[in-house]
Amino acid sequence: MATEAELTAMRRAVALAARGALTTPPNPDVGCVVLDAAGRVVGEGWHERPGGPHAEVVALRSAGDAARGGTAVVTLEPCDHTGRTGPCTSALIEAGVRRVVIAVADPNPVAAGGAATLRAHGIDVELGVLQDDAERMNARWLTPFRTRRPFVVWKFAATLDGRSAAADGTSRWITGAQARADVHRLRASVDTVVAGVGTVVADDPQLTARPADEHVPPGQPLRVVVDSDGRTPATARVRDGSAPTWIATADEVGAGADGRVDLAKLLSMLDERGQRYVLLEGGPTLAGAFWRAGLVDRVVGYVAPALLGAGDAVLACAGVTTIGEAIRLDVSDVAVVGGDIRITATPREHRKA
Amino acid sequence: MATEAELTAMRRAVALAARGALTTPPNPDVGCVVLDAAGRVVGEGWHERPGGPHAEVVALRSAGDAARGGTAVVTLEPCDHTGRTGPCTSALIEAGVRRVVIAVADPNPVAAGGAATLRAHGIDVELGVLQDDAERMNARWLTPFRTRRPFVVWKFAATLDGRSAAADGTSRWITGAQARADVHRLRASVDTVVAGVGTVVADDPQLTARPADEHVPPGQPLRVVVDSDGRTPATARVRDGSAPTWIATADEVGAGADGRVDLAKLLSMLDERGQRYVLLEGGPTLAGAFWRAGLVDRVVGYVAPALLGAGDAVLACAGVTTIGEAIRLDVSDVAVVGGDIRITATPREHRKA
Ligand SMILES: NC(=O)c1ccc[n+]([C@@H]2O[C@H](COP(=O)([O-])OP(=O)(O)OC[C@H]3O[C@@H](n4cnc5c(N)ncnc54)[C@H](OP(=O)(O)O)[C@@H]3O)[C@@H](O)[C@H]2O)c1
Ligand SMILES: NC(=O)c1ccc[n+]([C@@H]2O[C@H](COP(=O)([O-])OP(=O)(O)OC[C@H]3O[C@@H](n4cnc5c(N)ncnc54)[C@H](OP(=O)(O)O)[C@@H]3O)[C@@H](O)[C@H]2O)c1
Repeated sequence: MATEAELTAMRRAVALAARGALTTPPNPDVGCVVLDAAGRVVGEGWHERPGGPHAEVVALRSAGDAARGGTAVVTLEPCDHTGRTGPCTSALIEAGVRRVVIAVADPNPVAAGGAATLRAHGIDVELGVLQDDAERMNARWLTPFRTRRPFVVWKFAATLDGRSAAADGTSRWITGAQARADVHRLRASVDTVVAGVGTVVADDPQLTARPADEHVPPGQPLRVVVDSDGRTPATARVRDGSAPTWIATADEVGAGADGRVDLAKLLSMLDERGQRYVLLEGGPTLAGAFWRAGLVDRVVGYVAPALLGAGDAVLACAGVTTIGEAIRLDVSDVAVVGGDIRITATPREHRKA
Repeated sequence: MATEAELTAMRRAVALAARGALTTPPNPDVGCVVLDAAGRVVGEGWHERPGGPHAEVVALRSAGDAARGGTAVVTLEPCDHTGRTGPCTSALIEAGVRRVVIAVADPNPVAAGGAATLRAHGIDVELGVLQDDAERMNARWLTPFRTRRPFVVWKFAATLDGRSAAADGTSRWITGAQARADVHRLRASVDTVVAGVGTVVADDPQLTARPADEHVPPGQPLRVVVDSDGRTPATARVRDGSAPTWIATADEVGAGADGRVDLAKLLSMLDERGQRYVLLEGGPTLAGAFWRAGLVDRVVGYVAPALLGAGDAVLACAGVTTIGEAIRLDVSDVAVVGGDIRITATPREHRKA
């Protein structure tokens, strides 16, 4: 049984872990709090970026000698292998902690085994503490292990009345500069950006990450155009060579009953290629198809305080005909970004295709 | 010139005033901070409800003797007449303040003259301090004096993708119980509720204020159905006698170029009847017409974290055809109400009909 102090520490560790969200991919978001033998917080840390120290190491360092005989509270099972950094299990053993409290077991076969190693060294290990909270926070990383497909974030930009373009089709710019910079940071954090051929034909977007600040991505995400018949123009900017691009056709991927690209198939092919984190950038038709197939894990909506009263809605044909079937979400964050409102939400339950 | 302490006090007074927003109508929102002779805050107050003490009186009471020789900082010119309470000018004179700092002059001919009276008693009066902030905060009360029409709040409830109903027309309930209770409080604060005949025919709403808590309105707001040809059904619930009702037809009000009720005319007739505060409850067609005519002063949108992908948009035909013409708003408040998001915003500039 976890103590009150350990539960509090785990809540804090989950919050710390979330700070890494934009910079840790493809690594997990992990947070750690170290308590001394008397249960007082003596160290904190979170994983910040691939290649950087793991949360446990940061927290142990900040705790120093105070960790000896204490407890490490960590959101994910400590790794037991030597990657770019040494195994966290060794760091914990050397620091002399008496007990390790873990929220979620590591589903990654390469890194797992940490709990067993710790126990073999006489450390008391407790697994599953505040597991739900920690899983929700780290869903982006955990989901692919369980579903064998990338985690999918649907991003949209709309007016307060839900339009993604004016009556004449113009849409630049609905949201302000800060929201657009935020989208570039989000793009820089994923490994794959997906758009429908409709958007490519209409807007000719480049779909690269061009963050203005220090979050410069190590490489550009893969651009995927979902294009049943391969009608992406030869001159389209997605073909400019500035990032890897896949024009995913029905021939290559396989088609659903409607003759269009089979989206579940598309995602499992991406998974096979090692892609784990998709930003679905629309448009409305493709987004609707993803929702119908139950393939969206998170929504990030940028809502501009503007009204159009006409023009395309941001989402089409999601398979809902009556109010009782509405796709219900839970809001996890509401933030004002520049003059716009960013809403982050999660579908209440996964809907099946 | 106002001192730094007086400016800080005025900012605080504006914030205090805003606390009354749901309960002061038809009175203004007023806040007051009292500084002693050394410039320290010694009293605060705001006007809470009609019949209750004015902000100055509350603040002076809390300051007690410390007000003597000090400064009263107040968002609206103190009243000079005896209404349900005595004139605030007398209270200020009796309290012995040396100086009164005011944001906005009282446009109400019945209550005005306060500054002159104070000066006649040897009190130093400064007008216009942080006037813009105070006017924005009190716009609901000030606007009718300037425009000779009621202040109009457009309220809507929509999904994250901007729908006000599902494909089959069902819309109960898009938002949750707490958001609906919030709407009832809003209704209880206005003197007039306006809806289009389209909504009356489709939904047969009662349009009365039924707040669940202590904010019980002294009377029900006037219900107005905008109904060019008088096709509101005889059995409609708006005719149930539970509140005054006006079926406003083109015959009675006059028609615009499109043969429909002239909305500017409608609002000036409401003003003549003494109505000062309108809650426009839609639907999308009537709301669009209000926007086209530049007759909306504030937006309160309840956005449910839900997706429909089909169904009527919350706003139709607002006169915008290209993105550059979008009606731009400034967000003044974003709040989570139950599981929904309430967004309050103001049009950036008034658009002309
Ligand atoms: N505000 C925003 O956030 C945002 C974001 C993106 C786009 N947009 C706007 O959206 C508009 C384009 O909308 P759109 O709906 O035509 O474009 P879209 O959703 O990007 O593309 C739709 C196309 O994707 C193809 N597709 C392939 N497989 C599919 C499947 N399984 N299900 C559905 N579609 C599949 C279909 O064409 P094939 O049958 O030929 O394959 C379909 O017509 C543009 O005006 C753009 O500005 C807005
Ligand atoms: N989610 C929400 O917040 C919300 C709120 C309200 C309604 N709704 C939904 O909206 C739907 C009804 O939509 P609607 O657009 O038909 O209803 P509406 O906007 O309530 O009514 C429109 C009607 O108002 C009359 N009207 C009179 N003068 C007008 C003028 N100057 N300009 C425009 N219209 C004028 C017109 O009928 P005449 O020409 O006969 O006068 C017009 O057809 C319902 O399904 C309801 O559920 C949603």
